[in-house]
Amino acid sequence: MSMSVPPAAVSPDRVTIGFLAFPGVTALDLVGPYEVLARLPITTVVVAATREPVRTDRGLQLIPDVDFDGCPALDVLVVPGGPGQTQACQDEALLSFVRDRSEVADTVASICTGALIVATAGPLQGRRATTHWLARAELRRMGAIPVAGRVVRDGKFLSSGGVSAGIDSALTLAADLMGPDAAQTIQLSIEYDPAPPFTAGSPTTAPPHIVDRLRAASRFAQ
Amino acid sequence: MSMSVPPAAVSPDRVTIGFLAFPGVTALDLVGPYEVLARLPITTVVVAATREPVRTDRGLQLIPDVDFDGCPALDVLVVPGGPGQTQACQDEALLSFVRDRSEVADTVASICTGALIVATAGPLQGRRATTHWLARAELRRMGAIPVAGRVVRDGKFLSSGGVSAGIDSALTLAADLMGPDAAQTIQLSIEYDPAPPFTAGSPTTAPPHIVDRLRAASRFAQ
Repeated sequence: MSMSVPPAAVSPDRVTIGFLAFPGVTALDLVGPYEVLARLPITTVVVAATREPVRTDRGLQLIPDVDFDGCPALDVLVVPGGPGQTQACQDEALLSFVRDRSEVADTVASICTGALIVATAGPLQGRRATTHWLARAELRRMGAIPVAGRVVRDGKFLSSGGVSAGIDSALTLAADLMGPDAAQTIQLSIEYDPAPPFTAGSPTTAPPHIVDRLRAASRFAQ
Repeated sequence: MSMSVPPAAVSPDRVTIGFLAFPGVTALDLVGPYEVLARLPITTVVVAATREPVRTDRGLQLIPDVDFDGCPALDVLVVPGGPGQTQACQDEALLSFVRDRSEVADTVASICTGALIVATAGPLQGRRATTHWLARAELRRMGAIPVAGRVVRDGKFLSSGGVSAGIDSALTLAADLMGPDAAQTIQLSIEYDPAPPFTAGSPTTAPPHIVDRLRAASRFAQ
Protein backbone atom coordinates (compact mmCIF):
# COMPACT_ATOMS: atom_id res chain seq x y z
CA MET A 1 0.00 0.00 0.00
CA SER A 2 1.36 3.44 -0.79
CA MET A 3 0.03 4.78 2.51
CA SER A 4 1.43 3.16 5.63
CA VAL A 5 -2.01 2.43 7.01
CA PRO A 6 -3.90 -0.85 7.38
CA PRO A 7 -6.62 -1.59 4.78
CA ALA A 8 -9.41 -0.69 7.21
CA ALA A 9 -8.16 2.90 7.35
CA VAL A 10 -8.27 3.46 3.60
CA SER A 11 -10.07 6.72 3.02
CA PRO A 12 -13.33 6.09 1.15
CA ASP A 13 -13.05 9.32 -0.82
CA ARG A 14 -9.74 8.41 -2.43
CA VAL A 15 -9.47 6.34 -5.58
CA THR A 16 -8.19 2.87 -4.72
CA ILE A 17 -6.28 0.84 -7.28
CA GLY A 18 -5.60 -2.86 -6.77
CA PHE A 19 -2.75 -4.68 -8.53
CA LEU A 20 -3.32 -8.42 -8.75
CA ALA A 21 -0.26 -10.58 -8.00
CA PHE A 22 0.09 -14.34 -8.49
CA PRO A 23 2.96 -16.81 -8.77
CA GLY A 24 4.72 -16.42 -12.11
CA VAL A 25 3.45 -12.91 -12.77
CA THR A 26 5.86 -10.85 -14.90
CA ALA A 27 7.38 -8.23 -12.62
CA LEU A 28 7.28 -5.34 -15.10
CA ASP A 29 3.63 -6.07 -16.00
CA LEU A 30 2.80 -5.08 -12.44
CA VAL A 31 5.52 -2.56 -11.56
CA GLY A 32 5.30 -0.51 -14.77
CA PRO A 33 1.68 0.55 -14.18
CA TYR A 34 2.30 0.68 -10.42
CA GLU A 35 5.13 3.19 -10.86
CA VAL A 36 2.86 5.47 -12.90
CA LEU A 37 -0.38 5.13 -10.95
CA ALA A 38 1.14 5.20 -7.44
CA ARG A 39 2.35 8.75 -8.22
CA LEU A 40 -1.26 9.93 -8.31
CA PRO A 41 -2.88 11.03 -5.02
CA ILE A 42 -4.56 7.64 -4.70
CA THR A 43 -4.35 4.52 -2.58
CA THR A 44 -2.69 1.44 -4.07
CA VAL A 45 -2.81 -2.15 -2.87
CA VAL A 46 -1.05 -5.21 -4.18
CA VAL A 47 -3.53 -8.04 -3.73
CA ALA A 48 -2.97 -11.80 -3.90
CA ALA A 49 -4.56 -15.02 -2.69
CA THR A 50 -2.52 -14.78 0.51
CA ARG A 51 -0.12 -12.24 1.99
CA GLU A 52 2.80 -14.62 1.53
CA PRO A 53 5.55 -13.37 -0.81
CA VAL A 54 4.75 -13.82 -4.49
CA ARG A 55 7.54 -15.10 -6.73
CA THR A 56 7.49 -13.46 -10.14
CA ASP A 57 8.42 -15.42 -13.26
CA ARG A 58 12.14 -14.54 -13.08
CA GLY A 59 12.43 -15.01 -9.30
CA LEU A 60 11.98 -11.50 -7.87
CA GLN A 61 9.69 -11.66 -4.85
CA LEU A 62 7.00 -9.08 -4.00
CA ILE A 63 4.96 -8.87 -0.81
CA PRO A 64 1.19 -8.39 -1.24
CA ASP A 65 -0.47 -5.76 0.96
CA VAL A 66 -3.77 -7.62 1.27
CA ASP A 67 -5.31 -10.98 0.45
CA PHE A 68 -8.53 -11.41 -1.54
CA ASP A 69 -10.76 -11.27 1.55
CA GLY A 70 -8.93 -8.27 3.04
CA CYS A 71 -8.90 -6.24 -0.16
CA PRO A 72 -10.73 -2.89 0.09
CA ALA A 73 -13.26 -1.82 -2.53
CA LEU A 74 -11.41 -1.16 -5.79
CA ASP A 75 -12.12 1.63 -8.23
CA VAL A 76 -9.54 0.20 -10.59
CA LEU A 77 -8.37 -3.40 -10.88
CA VAL A 78 -5.05 -3.97 -12.66
CA VAL A 79 -4.52 -7.53 -13.94
CA PRO A 80 -0.96 -8.23 -15.09
CA GLY A 81 0.12 -11.28 -17.06
CA GLY A 82 3.14 -13.54 -17.34
CA PRO A 83 3.84 -17.27 -17.56
CA GLY A 84 1.84 -17.75 -14.34
CA GLN A 85 -1.28 -16.75 -16.28
CA THR A 86 -1.82 -20.38 -17.33
CA GLN A 87 -2.08 -21.49 -13.72
CA ALA A 88 -4.05 -18.37 -12.75
CA CYS A 89 -6.66 -19.28 -15.38
CA GLN A 90 -7.26 -22.57 -13.51
CA ASP A 91 -7.47 -20.96 -10.06
CA GLU A 92 -11.16 -20.59 -9.15
CA ALA A 93 -10.52 -18.29 -6.19
CA LEU A 94 -8.48 -15.93 -8.35
CA LEU A 95 -11.00 -16.02 -11.20
CA SER A 96 -13.85 -15.31 -8.76
CA PHE A 97 -11.94 -12.37 -7.34
CA VAL A 98 -11.37 -10.93 -10.83
CA ARG A 99 -15.01 -11.55 -11.81
CA ASP A 100 -16.47 -10.03 -8.62
CA ARG A 101 -14.19 -7.00 -8.52
CA SER A 102 -14.57 -6.34 -12.26
CA GLU A 103 -18.31 -6.05 -11.76
CA VAL A 104 -18.04 -3.08 -9.40
CA ALA A 105 -14.78 -1.43 -10.51
CA ASP A 106 -14.90 1.65 -12.73
CA THR A 107 -11.95 0.37 -14.76
CA VAL A 108 -10.38 -3.04 -15.30
CA ALA A 109 -6.91 -2.67 -16.80
CA SER A 110 -5.22 -5.79 -18.12
CA ILE A 111 -1.55 -5.85 -19.03
CA CYS A 112 -0.08 -8.33 -21.51
CA THR A 113 -1.56 -11.83 -20.97
CA GLY A 114 -3.57 -10.48 -18.03
CA ALA A 115 -6.29 -10.11 -20.69
CA LEU A 116 -6.49 -13.92 -20.85
CA ILE A 117 -7.23 -13.99 -17.13
CA VAL A 118 -10.01 -11.40 -17.43
CA ALA A 119 -11.41 -13.28 -20.44
CA THR A 120 -11.32 -16.61 -18.64
CA ALA A 121 -12.98 -15.06 -15.60
CA GLY A 122 -15.75 -13.87 -17.91
CA PRO A 123 -15.89 -10.08 -18.14
CA LEU A 124 -14.00 -9.78 -21.46
CA GLN A 125 -16.26 -12.24 -23.32
CA GLY A 126 -17.22 -10.68 -26.65
CA ARG A 127 -15.23 -7.52 -25.98
CA ARG A 128 -12.39 -5.99 -27.96
CA ALA A 129 -9.03 -6.24 -26.22
CA THR A 130 -5.32 -6.37 -26.88
CA THR A 131 -2.71 -8.62 -25.29
CA HIS A 132 0.87 -9.78 -25.84
CA TRP A 133 1.32 -10.20 -29.61
CA LEU A 134 2.02 -13.92 -29.14
CA ALA A 135 -1.27 -14.40 -27.26
CA ARG A 136 -3.76 -12.87 -29.69
CA ALA A 137 -5.00 -16.21 -31.06
CA GLU A 138 -5.29 -17.54 -27.52
CA LEU A 139 -7.34 -14.49 -26.51
CA ARG A 140 -9.74 -15.25 -29.35
CA ARG A 141 -10.01 -18.88 -28.18
CA MET A 142 -10.92 -17.52 -24.76
CA GLY A 143 -13.86 -15.60 -26.17
CA ALA A 144 -12.61 -12.02 -26.56
CA ILE A 145 -12.02 -10.13 -29.81
CA PRO A 146 -8.28 -9.55 -30.16
CA VAL A 147 -7.15 -6.18 -31.50
CA ALA A 148 -3.56 -5.37 -32.49
CA GLY A 149 -3.35 -2.02 -30.66
CA ARG A 150 -0.94 -1.15 -27.86
CA VAL A 151 -3.67 0.27 -25.60
CA VAL A 152 -7.30 -0.60 -26.30
CA ARG A 153 -10.46 0.50 -24.50
CA ASP A 154 -13.84 -1.22 -24.69
CA GLY A 155 -16.22 0.21 -22.13
CA LYS A 156 -14.58 0.00 -18.73
CA PHE A 157 -12.00 -2.50 -19.96
CA LEU A 158 -8.58 -1.07 -20.75
CA SER A 159 -6.15 -3.61 -22.18
CA SER A 160 -2.53 -3.26 -23.18
CA GLY A 161 -0.01 -5.16 -25.26
CA GLY A 162 2.96 -7.06 -23.91
CA VAL A 163 4.77 -6.21 -20.66
CA SER A 164 6.15 -2.69 -21.27
CA ALA A 165 2.86 -1.52 -22.83
CA GLY A 166 1.50 -1.27 -19.29
CA ILE A 167 3.42 1.98 -18.86
CA ASP A 168 1.66 3.58 -21.83
CA SER A 169 -1.66 2.19 -20.66
CA ALA A 170 -1.19 3.52 -17.13
CA LEU A 171 -0.37 7.01 -18.41
CA THR A 172 -3.61 6.89 -20.41
CA LEU A 173 -5.48 5.79 -17.30
CA ALA A 174 -3.80 8.46 -15.16
CA ALA A 175 -5.08 11.09 -17.59
CA ASP A 176 -8.58 9.59 -17.46
CA LEU A 177 -8.54 9.63 -13.66
CA MET A 178 -6.91 12.99 -12.89
CA GLY A 179 -6.47 14.84 -16.18
CA PRO A 180 -3.68 15.28 -18.71
CA ASP A 181 -1.59 17.60 -16.51
CA ALA A 182 -1.32 14.90 -13.84
CA ALA A 183 -0.36 12.28 -16.43
CA GLN A 184 2.25 14.54 -18.04
CA THR A 185 3.73 15.40 -14.64
CA ILE A 186 4.18 11.69 -14.00
CA GLN A 187 5.61 11.08 -17.45
CA LEU A 188 8.23 13.79 -16.88
CA SER A 189 8.96 12.61 -13.33
CA ILE A 190 9.78 9.12 -14.62
CA GLU A 191 11.55 10.67 -17.64
CA TYR A 192 9.54 8.52 -20.01
CA ASP A 193 11.09 9.70 -23.24
CA PRO A 194 11.88 6.25 -24.56
CA ALA A 195 14.86 5.65 -26.83
CA PRO A 196 15.15 1.91 -27.45
CA PRO A 197 18.58 1.06 -28.86
CA PHE A 198 16.95 -1.24 -31.46
CA THR A 199 13.79 -1.22 -33.57
CA ALA A 200 12.57 -4.59 -32.44
CA GLY A 201 9.66 -3.94 -30.12
CA SER A 202 6.85 -5.21 -32.34
CA PRO A 203 6.49 -8.20 -34.68
CA THR A 204 6.03 -5.76 -37.56
CA THR A 205 9.36 -4.01 -36.97
CA ALA A 206 11.63 -6.69 -35.48
CA PRO A 207 13.93 -8.74 -37.71
CA PRO A 208 11.94 -11.76 -39.01
CA HIS A 209 14.33 -14.32 -37.49
CA ILE A 210 13.75 -12.78 -34.04
CA VAL A 211 9.97 -12.96 -34.54
CA ASP A 212 10.25 -16.59 -35.68
CA ARG A 213 12.40 -17.49 -32.69
CA LEU A 214 9.84 -16.17 -30.23
CA ARG A 215 6.91 -17.75 -32.08
CA ALA A 216 8.65 -21.12 -31.93
CA ALA A 217 9.27 -20.74 -28.18
CA SER A 218 5.77 -19.47 -27.31
CA ARG A 219 3.58 -21.40 -24.91
CA PHE A 220 0.59 -20.44 -27.07
CA ALA A 221 -0.48 -22.06 -30.36
CA GLN A 222 0.20 -19.55 -33.16
CA MET B 1 17.58 -14.95 -7.62
CA SER B 2 16.32 -16.11 -10.99
CA MET B 3 17.57 -19.64 -10.30
CA SER B 4 16.10 -21.37 -7.29
CA VAL B 5 19.51 -22.15 -5.85
CA PRO B 6 21.29 -20.68 -2.84
CA PRO B 7 24.05 -18.13 -3.51
CA ALA B 8 26.79 -20.70 -2.83
CA ALA B 9 25.62 -22.76 -5.80
CA VAL B 10 25.85 -19.92 -8.30
CA SER B 11 27.74 -21.28 -11.29
CA PRO B 12 31.04 -19.42 -11.66
CA ASP B 13 30.87 -19.51 -15.44
CA ARG B 14 27.61 -17.62 -15.66
CA VAL B 15 27.42 -13.85 -15.62
CA THR B 16 26.02 -12.66 -12.30
CA ILE B 17 24.17 -9.36 -12.06
CA GLY B 18 23.39 -7.77 -8.72
CA PHE B 19 20.58 -5.25 -8.26
CA LEU B 20 21.07 -3.03 -5.23
CA ALA B 21 17.95 -2.43 -3.14
CA PHE B 22 17.53 0.04 -0.26
CA PRO B 23 14.62 1.71 1.56
CA GLY B 24 13.01 4.33 -0.65
CA VAL B 25 14.37 2.94 -3.91
CA THR B 26 12.09 3.64 -6.88
CA ALA B 27 10.54 0.32 -7.90
CA LEU B 28 10.80 0.83 -11.67
CA ASP B 29 14.46 1.90 -11.40
CA LEU B 30 15.17 -1.63 -10.27
CA VAL B 31 12.46 -3.68 -12.00
CA GLY B 32 12.86 -2.10 -15.47
CA PRO B 33 16.48 -3.28 -15.89
CA TYR B 34 15.71 -6.48 -13.97
CA GLU B 35 12.95 -7.42 -16.43
CA VAL B 36 15.35 -6.99 -19.36
CA LEU B 37 18.51 -8.52 -17.90
CA ALA B 38 16.86 -11.46 -16.09
CA ARG B 39 15.74 -12.72 -19.53
CA LEU B 40 19.39 -13.36 -20.44
CA PRO B 41 20.91 -16.74 -19.50
CA ILE B 42 22.51 -15.21 -16.44
CA THR B 43 22.13 -15.26 -12.67
CA THR B 44 20.47 -12.31 -10.96
CA VAL B 45 20.47 -11.37 -7.29
CA VAL B 46 18.69 -8.56 -5.51
CA VAL B 47 21.11 -7.44 -2.80
CA ALA B 48 20.47 -5.24 0.24
CA ALA B 49 21.95 -4.54 3.66
CA THR B 50 19.79 -7.31 5.12
CA ARG B 51 17.40 -9.89 3.71
CA GLU B 52 14.44 -8.15 5.35
CA PRO B 53 11.80 -6.80 2.91
CA VAL B 54 12.74 -3.49 1.32
CA ARG B 55 10.01 -0.86 1.07
CA THR B 56 10.21 1.11 -2.18
CA ASP B 57 9.37 4.81 -2.26
CA ARG B 58 5.67 4.24 -3.04
CA GLY B 59 5.23 1.35 -0.62
CA LEU B 60 5.69 -1.76 -2.75
CA GLN B 61 7.87 -4.26 -0.89
CA LEU B 62 10.56 -6.44 -2.48
CA ILE B 63 12.49 -9.27 -0.85
CA PRO B 64 16.27 -9.24 -1.33
CA ASP B 65 17.91 -12.56 -2.27
CA VAL B 66 21.16 -11.87 -0.43
CA ASP B 67 22.67 -9.39 2.00
CA PHE B 68 25.95 -7.54 1.41
CA ASP B 69 28.06 -10.26 3.05
CA GLY B 70 26.23 -13.09 1.29
CA CYS B 71 26.37 -11.51 -2.16
CA PRO B 72 28.25 -13.59 -4.75
CA ALA B 73 30.91 -12.04 -7.00
CA LEU B 74 29.19 -9.63 -9.38
CA ASP B 75 30.06 -9.13 -13.02
CA VAL B 76 27.54 -6.30 -13.22
CA LEU B 77 26.31 -4.08 -10.39
CA VAL B 78 23.05 -2.21 -11.02
CA VAL B 79 22.50 0.81 -8.75
CA PRO B 80 18.96 2.24 -8.93
CA GLY B 81 17.88 5.59 -7.49
CA GLY B 82 14.84 7.10 -5.85
CA PRO B 83 14.07 9.33 -2.87
CA GLY B 84 15.93 6.86 -0.64
CA GLN B 85 19.14 7.87 -2.41
CA THR B 86 19.65 10.73 0.08
CA GLN B 87 19.75 8.28 2.98
CA ALA B 88 21.74 5.74 0.97
CA CYS B 89 24.43 8.39 0.40
CA GLN B 90 24.90 8.59 4.19
CA ASP B 91 25.01 4.83 4.73
CA GLU B 92 28.66 3.80 5.07
CA ALA B 93 27.96 0.07 4.72
CA LEU B 94 26.05 0.64 1.49
CA LEU B 95 28.68 3.02 0.11
CA SER B 96 31.45 0.53 0.96
CA PHE B 97 29.54 -2.22 -0.81
CA VAL B 98 29.15 -0.07 -3.93
CA ARG B 99 32.81 1.00 -3.82
CA ASP B 100 34.17 -2.52 -3.30
CA ARG B 101 31.95 -4.21 -5.87
CA SER B 102 32.49 -1.44 -8.44
CA GLU B 103 36.22 -2.09 -8.26
CA VAL B 104 35.93 -5.69 -9.48
CA ALA B 105 32.74 -5.60 -11.59
CA ASP B 106 33.01 -5.41 -15.38
CA THR B 107 30.09 -2.96 -15.53
CA VAL B 108 28.49 -0.61 -13.01
CA ALA B 109 25.09 0.50 -14.28
CA SER B 110 23.38 3.36 -12.46
CA ILE B 111 19.75 4.23 -13.04
CA CYS B 112 18.33 7.69 -12.36
CA THR B 113 19.71 9.11 -9.09
CA GLY B 114 21.64 5.87 -8.53
CA ALA B 115 24.47 7.84 -10.17
CA LEU B 116 24.58 10.06 -7.07
CA ILE B 117 25.18 6.95 -4.96
CA VAL B 118 28.03 5.74 -7.19
CA ALA B 119 29.50 9.27 -7.21
CA THR B 120 29.28 9.58 -3.43
CA ALA B 121 30.84 6.13 -3.01
CA GLY B 122 33.74 7.36 -5.16
CA PRO B 123 33.96 5.50 -8.46
CA LEU B 124 32.20 8.14 -10.59
CA GLN B 125 34.47 11.00 -9.46
CA GLY B 126 35.59 12.94 -12.53
CA ARG B 127 33.65 10.68 -14.89
CA ARG B 128 30.92 11.56 -17.37
CA ALA B 129 27.50 10.32 -16.33
CA THR B 130 23.81 11.01 -16.73
CA THR B 131 21.09 10.96 -14.08
CA HIS B 132 17.50 12.12 -13.55
CA TRP B 133 17.19 15.52 -15.26
CA LEU B 134 16.40 17.18 -11.92
CA ALA B 135 19.60 15.80 -10.35
CA ARG B 136 22.22 16.94 -12.86
CA ALA B 137 23.43 19.88 -10.78
CA GLU B 138 23.56 17.63 -7.72
CA LEU B 139 25.63 15.08 -9.64
CA ARG B 140 28.14 17.82 -10.46
CA ARG B 141 28.28 18.82 -6.78
CA MET B 142 29.07 15.19 -6.00
CA GLY B 143 32.10 15.27 -8.27
CA ALA B 144 30.96 13.67 -11.54
CA ILE B 145 30.54 15.38 -14.92
CA PRO B 146 26.82 15.43 -15.74
CA VAL B 147 25.81 14.75 -19.33
CA ALA B 148 22.27 15.20 -20.69
CA GLY B 149 22.08 11.84 -22.51
CA ARG B 150 19.57 9.07 -21.82
CA VAL B 151 22.25 6.35 -21.66
CA VAL B 152 25.89 7.34 -21.17
CA ARG B 153 28.98 5.16 -20.97
CA ASP B 154 32.34 6.20 -19.51
CA GLY B 155 34.65 3.22 -19.25
CA LYS B 156 32.88 0.53 -17.27
CA PHE B 157 30.30 2.96 -15.95
CA LEU B 158 26.96 2.92 -17.71
CA SER B 159 24.51 5.55 -16.46
CA SER B 160 20.95 6.28 -17.43
CA GLY B 161 18.45 9.10 -17.09
CA GLY B 162 15.40 9.07 -14.86
CA VAL B 163 13.49 5.92 -13.87
CA SER B 164 12.21 4.54 -17.20
CA ALA B 165 15.58 5.13 -18.91
CA GLY B 166 16.82 2.02 -17.14
CA ILE B 167 14.94 -0.09 -19.69
CA ASP B 168 16.85 1.49 -22.59
CA SER B 169 20.09 1.20 -20.65
CA ALA B 170 19.51 -2.47 -19.87
CA LEU B 171 18.82 -3.28 -23.52
CA THR B 172 22.13 -1.60 -24.38
CA LEU B 173 23.86 -3.65 -21.70
CA ALA B 174 22.13 -6.87 -22.84
CA ALA B 175 23.57 -6.29 -26.31
CA ASP B 176 27.02 -5.66 -24.85
CA LEU B 177 26.85 -8.86 -22.82
CA MET B 178 25.26 -11.29 -25.26
CA GLY B 179 24.97 -9.57 -28.63
CA PRO B 180 22.29 -7.60 -30.50
CA ASP B 181 20.17 -10.68 -31.31
CA ALA B 182 19.74 -11.44 -27.61
CA ALA B 183 18.83 -7.82 -26.87
CA GLN B 184 16.33 -7.65 -29.73
CA THR B 185 14.75 -10.93 -28.66
CA ILE B 186 14.20 -9.44 -25.22
CA GLN B 187 12.88 -6.18 -26.64
CA LEU B 188 10.30 -8.08 -28.70
CA SER B 189 9.41 -10.40 -25.80
CA ILE B 190 8.56 -7.39 -23.60
CA GLU B 191 6.95 -5.69 -26.63
CA TYR B 192 9.01 -2.56 -26.03
CA ASP B 193 7.62 -0.47 -28.84
CA PRO B 194 6.79 2.54 -26.70
CA ALA B 195 3.89 4.84 -27.55
CA PRO B 196 3.55 7.40 -24.75
CA PRO B 197 0.16 9.12 -24.95
CA PHE B 198 1.83 12.52 -24.37
CA THR B 199 5.07 14.20 -25.42
CA ALA B 200 6.17 15.08 -21.94
CA GLY B 201 9.02 12.71 -21.11
CA SER B 202 11.88 15.21 -21.13
CA PRO B 203 12.25 18.80 -19.89
CA THR B 204 12.89 19.87 -23.49
CA THR B 205 9.57 18.49 -24.76
CA ALA B 206 7.19 18.74 -21.79
CA PRO B 207 4.92 21.77 -21.38
CA PRO B 208 6.90 24.46 -19.48
CA HIS B 209 4.40 24.64 -16.59
CA ILE B 210 4.88 20.90 -16.00
CA VAL B 211 8.68 21.34 -15.97
CA ASP B 212 8.37 24.27 -13.55
CA ARG B 213 6.07 22.30 -11.25
CA LEU B 214 8.58 19.46 -10.93
CA ARG B 215 11.54 21.82 -10.49
CA ALA B 216 9.71 23.56 -7.65
CA ALA B 217 8.96 20.23 -5.95
CA SER B 218 12.45 18.74 -6.42
CA ARG B 219 14.52 17.75 -3.40
CA PHE B 220 17.61 18.96 -5.27
CA ALA B 221 18.77 22.57 -5.65
CA GLN B 222 18.25 23.54 -9.31
